[in-house]
Amino acid sequence: MQLAEPMIEDWRAFTTHVSLDDAVIAQDAVTLTWSDRRVSLFHFAWLRDNCACSQCVHPLTREQVFEIADMPDDLRIQAASIDHNGALNTQWTDGHRSVYGPGWLRAHAYDETSRAERRGGDQVQPWCSEYGAALTAFDWHEIRHDDTALLAWLVALRRTGLTLLRGVPSTPDTVAEVAQRISFIRESNFGVLFDVVSKPTPDSNAYTSINLPPHTDLPTRELQPGLQFLHCLINEASGGDSIFIDGFALAAHLRQHEPEVFATLTSVPFEFWNKSATSDYRASAPVIALDGAGEVSEVRHANFLRGPVSARSELMPEIYHAYRRFIQLGRDPRFRVQRRLAAGEMWAFDNRRVLHARTEFDPQTGARHLQGCYIDRDELLSRIRVLERAVGAKAR
Amino acid sequence: MQLAEPMIEDWRAFTTHVSLDDAVIAQDAVTLTWSDRRVSLFHFAWLRDNCACSQCVHPLTREQVFEIADMPDDLRIQAASIDHNGALNTQWTDGHRSVYGPGWLRAHAYDETSRAERRGGDQVQPWCSEYGAALTAFDWHEIRHDDTALLAWLVALRRTGLTLLRGVPSTPDTVAEVAQRISFIRESNFGVLFDVVSKPTPDSNAYTSINLPPHTDLPTRELQPGLQFLHCLINEASGGDSIFIDGFALAAHLRQHEPEVFATLTSVPFEFWNKSATSDYRASAPVIALDGAGEVSEVRHANFLRGPVSARSELMPEIYHAYRRFIQLGRDPRFRVQRRLAAGEMWAFDNRRVLHARTEFDPQTGARHLQGCYIDRDELLSRIRVLERAVGAKAR
Repeated sequence: MQLAEPMIEDWRAFTTHVSLDDAVIAQDAVTLTWSDRRVSLFHFAWLRDNCACSQCVHPLTREQVFEIADMPDDLRIQAASIDHNGALNTQWTDGHRSVYGPGWLRAHAYDETSRAERRGGDQVQPWCSEYGAALTAFDWHEIRHDDTALLAWLVALRRTGLTLLRGVPSTPDTVAEVAQRISFIRESNFGVLFDVVSKPTPDSNAYTSINLPPHTDLPTRELQPGLQFLHCLINEASGGDSIFIDGFALAAHLRQHEPEVFATLTSVPFEFWNKSATSDYRASAPVIALDGAGEVSEVRHANFLRGPVSARSELMPEIYHAYRRFIQLGRDPRFRVQRRLAAGEMWAFDNRRVLHARTEFDPQTGARHLQGCYIDRDELLSRIRVLERAVGAKAR
Repeated sequence: MQLAEPMIEDWRAFTTHVSLDDAVIAQDAVTLTWSDRRVSLFHFAWLRDNCACSQCVHPLTREQVFEIADMPDDLRIQAASIDHNGALNTQWTDGHRSVYGPGWLRAHAYDETSRAERRGGDQVQPWCSEYGAALTAFDWHEIRHDDTALLAWLVALRRTGLTLLRGVPSTPDTVAEVAQRISFIRESNFGVLFDVVSKPTPDSNAYTSINLPPHTDLPTRELQPGLQFLHCLINEASGGDSIFIDGFALAAHLRQHEPEVFATLTSVPFEFWNKSATSDYRASAPVIALDGAGEVSEVRHANFLRGPVSARSELMPEIYHAYRRFIQLGRDPRFRVQRRLAAGEMWAFDNRRVLHARTEFDPQTGARHLQGCYIDRDELLSRIRVLERAVGAKAR
């Protein structure tokens, strides 16, 4: 049963071009040698934790029921062999047996070579103003009906952080249909969908006609929305161009040319506050966030949604220097993509990476109505993984 | 205009029991001396950034329109005085004038004393098994109609992370009404509301009748849901008790008694995976998260929602030792609150702090139906702040 594809512990099938040559039992681990001479060590505890038999993993949910705390302290593998399917068979000292397919073992091996291999994959591509001319539009009609077109769009969105869709009917609430092609929508205090129009009693500068400087939306939340969709229903007013700046490109520029500014922006928490009559959101976070590997993972910035900086007094001059430099760099035309959205077009962008801005418009000259919504990164990535499973299945 | 209460830059009124005695202009800052002899330095850039006049802040949205990058490099305050309202009046070298109320300045001062004062406030209270007996139930009828009762409940939830509600009508979807008393609900792939019942084709161990070990919900998302609500509609099956463990108490215990285990659990990312036929969520994060000040801010744990550990081979023995210790500690009766929920009762708990578990139940002996939903921490904290504004207004 354990050798059926897909394995019980996963919903994917694991294929591999290499085979297991040898299994040797060491003190607290099994050393496996592959046909390409790679050597992978698997500790007893790790192997016991990952036993995928129907006693250890619930056969219907494929979630683990065994807990590694129940492994006896002295449990060992007493016999290990490669069976006729090429799988690792282990016999444990308490009588349990486990079987691990070679494709699955190769995909989860934690020797240095295997881990480095997994860190590769689809890379982020920072961009500057030239990207505006290179921006190809995706066609909503194709995406709507075809999973391959959907996957191509989502992979581009993950890589570049900014995509344009065409052919999106300029009827209200269509933006929801597009977003739901990916997943459910993330609600906020501005609603499930929000209407970007000039309002008589605005509760955000977005709902006036003034220019909006480059910003991410909802920086006042612990988790900024991952994706933002802005669908143009009507754009007949003069002004009101869309401007986009790749925050990862700004960060890369600062890291290289002004490392002290970069160090301040990645280490000092700024205060992001969004106060209104009915809400009072606050988050404290650096403008540029780094992940565990030191790579830029997020930009958080909206000048108009900040509380007073609270930091050690000695740091204040360098904090303001760094913050002013960040704003100045965002004004540099080299980094800016500017484009006027027409009815039936839609922006889809990574709100935690790409800053968006709007030039002032004149509501006296015509109507302007954009409709928007958010989805989190988790949903995008999950959708891509599930779509790629189908592609992987076709390829076999 | 700037002295009207509330000030334009905020929705609160700022009162203070101290007054400004003196303002002295230094090289790049103003030094203010208060009537209680506290001295607060305010840098020119900070003051210019926080000018709340109607040119710098939009009068309707109360969001900033001035950007500090537009401050001339050589801008200085040429005159500073305390006016007859006790406010700081500044005359800038470019002709701009700014006025800052003393209450607002005191509330945002960044001298060391003022910052330490603000770090105080409502403290988290870790708890052990004794908390079960001390658990007082909040009455939904009161909370539903009375903002003071609502605030008392929410403050208790923020402090303890675990509260019980009574008098919640055991009709389906009532849990949504309770949650929406705070804010909108956070949707997940399990829906806006989820039904915890034993299902014939479960897509999660939660939807079986087996015991569920201590866990947080949705650890597979970058941001775990902040609050979880579990409302009991019917509980006639034998078994199925609720168990709660304060993850912050476990973390505090490990930090004190097993610092090496604590160090591993706060530094090594674990893989949290939730795969199903239609979704594939993955997050990589330590079991115990620390905030910028080194305080425990989050616990992330669900044994049945993990992917294989991927870490340097040399670390594997200590990783498994630490993880086994964490599970073992969660089984220790000293930390456990166990209680059977009756129809009409509801748990509300901090899902990023409190682990919850369920004993096995026998679906042959009767029906069991819980209904649940999530809300994020941001919504809880915003709601508390807005409610506290009203209390503050009453107190004046």
